[in-house]
Amino acid sequence: MIAIETERNWKPVIKEFEAVVGKNGVVQRREELLVYECDGLASYRQRPALVVLPRTTEEVAKVVKICDRNSIPWVARGAGTGLSGGALPVENCVLIVTALMRKILKVDLENQQVVVQPGVINNWVTQAVSGAGFYYAPDPSSQIVCSIGGNVAENSGGVHCLKYGVTTNHVLGLKLVLPDGSIVDVGGEIPEMPGYDLTGVFVGSEGTLGIATEVTLRILKAPESICVLLADFASIEAAGESVSDIISAGIIPGGMEIMDNISINAVEDVVATGCYPRDAAAILLIEIDGLEVEVATNKQRISEICKQNGARNITTAHDPETRMKIWKGRKAAFAAAGHLSPDYYVQDGVIPRTQMAFVLKEIEGLSEKYGYQIANVFHAGDGNLHPLILYDNSVEGALEKVEELGGEILKLCVKVGGSLSGEHGIGADKKCFMPDMFSEVDLETMQWVREVFNPKGLANPGKMFPTPKTCGEAARAKMETVNKLEGVELF
Amino acid sequence: MIAIETERNWKPVIKEFEAVVGKNGVVQRREELLVYECDGLASYRQRPALVVLPRTTEEVAKVVKICDRNSIPWVARGAGTGLSGGALPVENCVLIVTALMRKILKVDLENQQVVVQPGVINNWVTQAVSGAGFYYAPDPSSQIVCSIGGNVAENSGGVHCLKYGVTTNHVLGLKLVLPDGSIVDVGGEIPEMPGYDLTGVFVGSEGTLGIATEVTLRILKAPESICVLLADFASIEAAGESVSDIISAGIIPGGMEIMDNISINAVEDVVATGCYPRDAAAILLIEIDGLEVEVATNKQRISEICKQNGARNITTAHDPETRMKIWKGRKAAFAAAGHLSPDYYVQDGVIPRTQMAFVLKEIEGLSEKYGYQIANVFHAGDGNLHPLILYDNSVEGALEKVEELGGEILKLCVKVGGSLSGEHGIGADKKCFMPDMFSEVDLETMQWVREVFNPKGLANPGKMFPTPKTCGEAARAKMETVNKLEGVELF
Repeated sequence: MIAIETERNWKPVIKEFEAVVGKNGVVQRREELLVYECDGLASYRQRPALVVLPRTTEEVAKVVKICDRNSIPWVARGAGTGLSGGALPVENCVLIVTALMRKILKVDLENQQVVVQPGVINNWVTQAVSGAGFYYAPDPSSQIVCSIGGNVAENSGGVHCLKYGVTTNHVLGLKLVLPDGSIVDVGGEIPEMPGYDLTGVFVGSEGTLGIATEVTLRILKAPESICVLLADFASIEAAGESVSDIISAGIIPGGMEIMDNISINAVEDVVATGCYPRDAAAILLIEIDGLEVEVATNKQRISEICKQNGARNITTAHDPETRMKIWKGRKAAFAAAGHLSPDYYVQDGVIPRTQMAFVLKEIEGLSEKYGYQIANVFHAGDGNLHPLILYDNSVEGALEKVEELGGEILKLCVKVGGSLSGEHGIGADKKCFMPDMFSEVDLETMQWVREVFNPKGLANPGKMFPTPKTCGEAARAKMETVNKLEGVELF
Repeated sequence: MIAIETERNWKPVIKEFEAVVGKNGVVQRREELLVYECDGLASYRQRPALVVLPRTTEEVAKVVKICDRNSIPWVARGAGTGLSGGALPVENCVLIVTALMRKILKVDLENQQVVVQPGVINNWVTQAVSGAGFYYAPDPSSQIVCSIGGNVAENSGGVHCLKYGVTTNHVLGLKLVLPDGSIVDVGGEIPEMPGYDLTGVFVGSEGTLGIATEVTLRILKAPESICVLLADFASIEAAGESVSDIISAGIIPGGMEIMDNISINAVEDVVATGCYPRDAAAILLIEIDGLEVEVATNKQRISEICKQNGARNITTAHDPETRMKIWKGRKAAFAAAGHLSPDYYVQDGVIPRTQMAFVLKEIEGLSEKYGYQIANVFHAGDGNLHPLILYDNSVEGALEKVEELGGEILKLCVKVGGSLSGEHGIGADKKCFMPDMFSEVDLETMQWVREVFNPKGLANPGKMFPTPKTCGEAARAKMETVNKLEGVELF
């Protein structure tokens, strides 16, 4: 990584940016920059030096090239709804915001594809094709505000990702601007592409390899029939057990979500769905989709499994209105938690489904140990937990304690064979935990890839990896590890 | 790339290899090396200097390290059934063969995973778990002989990949030996992993980035019900049209295969399934799987679509025996073509489904133009064509003409928006066509990744890319392209 100037004369650089994006495309007034200080992870803040708003691939390439030539670090930002600080600015950086890149460039129903600019809102994709009976599957809770570019950077998930996969399973191709300003196409319009799968590497790379300026998305045919089943339980373990049993029976529903009593009541207080039983220890929400006959059969089988696990009540909804009402509660769960306490911290970890009962018990123990209430809302089918730690940031030292608690939860996930993140990414927030999950050699192999795309380290520096290393440092460290291994060998 | 010695004193190196894998693990006699001269693409041949047969990850690492230290190029080989020459030796190379790495290391039914060594035969995975009601989805025609390591290298497909995806969708994690001999884990036991998706890059990298020594595979619950539908048509276009209509109706069958009249008769001559009507212009084989009710409904809907497209007869088979018989014919189609002429050349290209009728007509024209019969057998649902060009290699110049014809078919696929390879890979065979599909910058970006894993170019040299370049060359060439782009820019 090269030295980054802290005391810079920004005037000539601003002129260069303005020549590309126009005067209105550069935000430089201190008070206007305020809103760009953080993303959805509001506990970290850093004001960028400038915000630049390009409109096209070519403009992005020129902006990145100016940064490259002037050694200015830059961070790409979509809608800023990310929860791991992936779009958190760094000191004296340029924030490249895709808010003006909101065109749907192509809708190809015959080949089930849509090409969009990165600033397009997730939900707009479905809106653009739903009239013709299609939809875009990945559906983060923030889908009415989050952007496709951010979804690509973080490899976002959502309720429907149990059956249909996360963002990477729905991105066919990308037009990229790499950190040297070159424009590259990876992947394409058909799923089978020869060569290395660079589309796969880029999705989830959290802005460290470049910016996607066009995204080719796969859209799916909407199912013939959809039913939402709501089962309520006297214990969260019974809800978890039902999830395991459903999967073991070979049924893969569209989505399976668990909300605990705290979340249920928070949601009913705020959104008042009227559907969630306030006295349940947990509810299990299951979306069943497919052919009408298939939905009917699976509804029957799932209901039986829930009953066997002690479900108190099971209700089902077929009509769109009731289904929306049930899901609205789940999608508003994070926001509703905000009404329970002045602040909350969302954790995002993954565990093997088989460990669910054990991990939930442990989280309960940690909640007691630290003295913070934890609400549990999660993608149960994927084992993707979202513990919400409720706290008050105005209490001195609270954030530090909450972060420590969050860290303990993450380490627990990794310990049982899970992952540091299901869908929110590593960003600025979790990079220090990467060594808990990956060996030194594993991490350095990833960093080789970063160095090759981003050799100067200007693209989203300080994210994802615990200690950003230069190419030379990473190579040396790796050789040391190799040599260490070699020590136990024959020769 | 470093200079490779052609005149080498192999004796001390053989000693080193023997110290790792034992005397029996090194094959050096000329006549024993003969069988390793080529893979399934028999038109290219090159004898390796040595064959080494390691048994464990550690042995592979040591073998690779000996190659690295002595600057010996090496090529990994599984069962040698590949059709693009991916396992073709290079001059004076060591062939690292995984034939002794055939252990199934772990079966975890609860988490639906199996960990295998790379030499494990594809079909063994299903055999290991079928008793418990599971299976491994990717099923190349060669599945009873091809190895998982080769499947990973080539990102193999198969009949069932229409609904369930190709190999990359079923590999959760890999233990790798990189070309410097280091051992790295990528991916893991759960699908959601933070960091770059290096598993995705490695799958399909055709042996150019290292060797997979342990593969964690996802297994699926076997469907409740399976039905195979065989529809016969008076024209291949009508069969193709039926495929489009089925997908457009929102039905994704387990697999959809088309065989033309030549293939039908070749198969009946050789395998005598007794199921294929010899006078049909084409047959469409469709596997419908899922719940019993779902299969019944989809069978009905698919039959109607086929009838609307003029299907003459539709037969269905539910019992495993008849289903096997129907599929046996399809799986034997390549081998059966071998009985129609002394030699045949299998092409592997992908087209958008919407272009099928046009492309088949063009292939017919090319067949007439070159004077070679072409049999068509293909994964119709994916648009993955496998034209089999029938020829006699003993006729001087025939192979050249056939390769030219094959090349024209590939260019046609790319021209209509398709791909150079659906599942067989690029290997030695198709690398010269890569520039038809990718721009110079796109290819060089891929080569950056290769250089970072394989900086000396010792791992499977000369495959996949048209002109192997050193890191420096690739970087320079890329900068030239970037500068060219810059020429049209503002500054």
